[in-house]
Amino acid sequence: MAERVAFIGLGVMGGPIAGHLARAGHQVTVYNRTASKAARWVEQYGGSTAQTPAAAAAGAVAVFVCVGNDDDVRAVTTAPTGALAEMRRGAVLVDHTTTSATLARELAAAGRARGVGFVDAPVSGGQPGAEQGTLTVMCGGEPDDYARAEPLLRCYARMVKRLGPAGSGQLAKMVNQICIAGLVEGLAEALHFAKQAGLDPADVIEVISKGAAQSWQMENRHRQMLEGRYDFGFAVDWMRKDLGILLDEARRNGAHLPVTALVDQFYAEVQALGGGRWDTSSLMARLEALKKTRSGRRS
Amino acid sequence: MAERVAFIGLGVMGGPIAGHLARAGHQVTVYNRTASKAARWVEQYGGSTAQTPAAAAAGAVAVFVCVGNDDDVRAVTTAPTGALAEMRRGAVLVDHTTTSATLARELAAAGRARGVGFVDAPVSGGQPGAEQGTLTVMCGGEPDDYARAEPLLRCYARMVKRLGPAGSGQLAKMVNQICIAGLVEGLAEALHFAKQAGLDPADVIEVISKGAAQSWQMENRHRQMLEGRYDFGFAVDWMRKDLGILLDEARRNGAHLPVTALVDQFYAEVQALGGGRWDTSSLMARLEALKKTRSGRRS
Repeated sequence: MAERVAFIGLGVMGGPIAGHLARAGHQVTVYNRTASKAARWVEQYGGSTAQTPAAAAAGAVAVFVCVGNDDDVRAVTTAPTGALAEMRRGAVLVDHTTTSATLARELAAAGRARGVGFVDAPVSGGQPGAEQGTLTVMCGGEPDDYARAEPLLRCYARMVKRLGPAGSGQLAKMVNQICIAGLVEGLAEALHFAKQAGLDPADVIEVISKGAAQSWQMENRHRQMLEGRYDFGFAVDWMRKDLGILLDEARRNGAHLPVTALVDQFYAEVQALGGGRWDTSSLMARLEALKKTRSGRRS
Repeated sequence: MAERVAFIGLGVMGGPIAGHLARAGHQVTVYNRTASKAARWVEQYGGSTAQTPAAAAAGAVAVFVCVGNDDDVRAVTTAPTGALAEMRRGAVLVDHTTTSATLARELAAAGRARGVGFVDAPVSGGQPGAEQGTLTVMCGGEPDDYARAEPLLRCYARMVKRLGPAGSGQLAKMVNQICIAGLVEGLAEALHFAKQAGLDPADVIEVISKGAAQSWQMENRHRQMLEGRYDFGFAVDWMRKDLGILLDEARRNGAHLPVTALVDQFYAEVQALGGGRWDTSSLMARLEALKKTRSGRRS
């Protein structure tokens, strides 16, 4: 059934996600902080643009948000010209931004006060997942709100699941990022060791990638790590944002994350090397840079 | 073609490995420090026992070793009653023990002086891999020596590869263990966080196990980690042995392994908790123990 929906934030993730909604036949009104981007999106996919998030949200059964961080989300939702000002009762607000769980609970409460549902719905799968419509969506919210959002999420997701009340989607995304931090550092240290030991690291990966050391990161990142190529993927600046949020959450819930906290500091060193826009696998670049510094001292 | 071979060390790995050689039709003479184990093996698989490693090795075209550590290997190879004392020219010595690369090079040189080939061949795949004959074997040695050993290794391995000169198999196994150390700690921190955050960790794993956080460890260990069950798998005591060897090697080759070194210390804490025989996934038990200590203080 074609629905009237609004989409706020047409970046590398939001743009293609909104495109899938339009292609599925929904009537999409878009808003983007840089208006020219919204105009270009409408040229490509149809639909219409609005001057404010509130204007985009008026009359929509679902409003999607996909922006940068907690403050960006507030600016397009609870601010005076934000979506909540114009959302009708019974509509649902879906936030694809990776934010704190605290913000998700805040938005759920703000929605509830206006008779509007809320689902926090951070994604994984990156830009290729957004473009191909194969994202994973981790959801938090009331079962009724989730049930209304789910058929729309299926337009661009391979895996959609509700994990609990508002905030649960964000917390699940944090679990994902914690896995990745330790895993990528382990892989980087392993490849760095292989090079220092004089092995052919690609041969070694061929042998060990069938067993207990196997990972998606090993399969999909080892080549670029060995080439020192990081101009793609999920940027270190964004990873540091996510790690900041989750370390803060861990301080509240009492989880002990020694390696995750250490890897966050390593990513700060990657940023210092100029790698803020590099893929998260660039932890390898940090280890290799240390090597260069040592060689430099010797000569 | 049926060959006369010797097998030294009939532990949980060596026993079933030697069994596959016997089942393939080879004539196997076994030696084990505890002689009763060798007698039991012969009852099950046929072949014959010898009183010393040297006696087992006499007349064999290939001698396999699968014991505990560097010193155990020396005791059955280069010691006066060791295999090398009786191996014939043109035979090959294959060491399945996980040892230092230095020992592998030592044994290659000792073999060369007697006209005996050498292949270091540490394995991964654990006890199930040994029993099912699906091990991965990481080999180092001269191409000719490897070529002689390979058909025999195929009796119990799914993946066999030569990675370079003597020591390269051991170095590749180290790469494998480095990957695992960071990866398992990341997974443990993630599951610990999920519990502290009040999520259903099994639900979260279902969602994130299709994407960038996926790993063999996640798929094969998360259930036991959530249950706190570690009475199986690759023991922490053995992992610490391997980590000790590889951190020593890294000191020599200049590799920088900050998280691997830290996780080695965490495993020391698991040993202090009485977990020396627990599976490597018990890094989770350490995080959960910290929680109990905190709760204990509060009450």
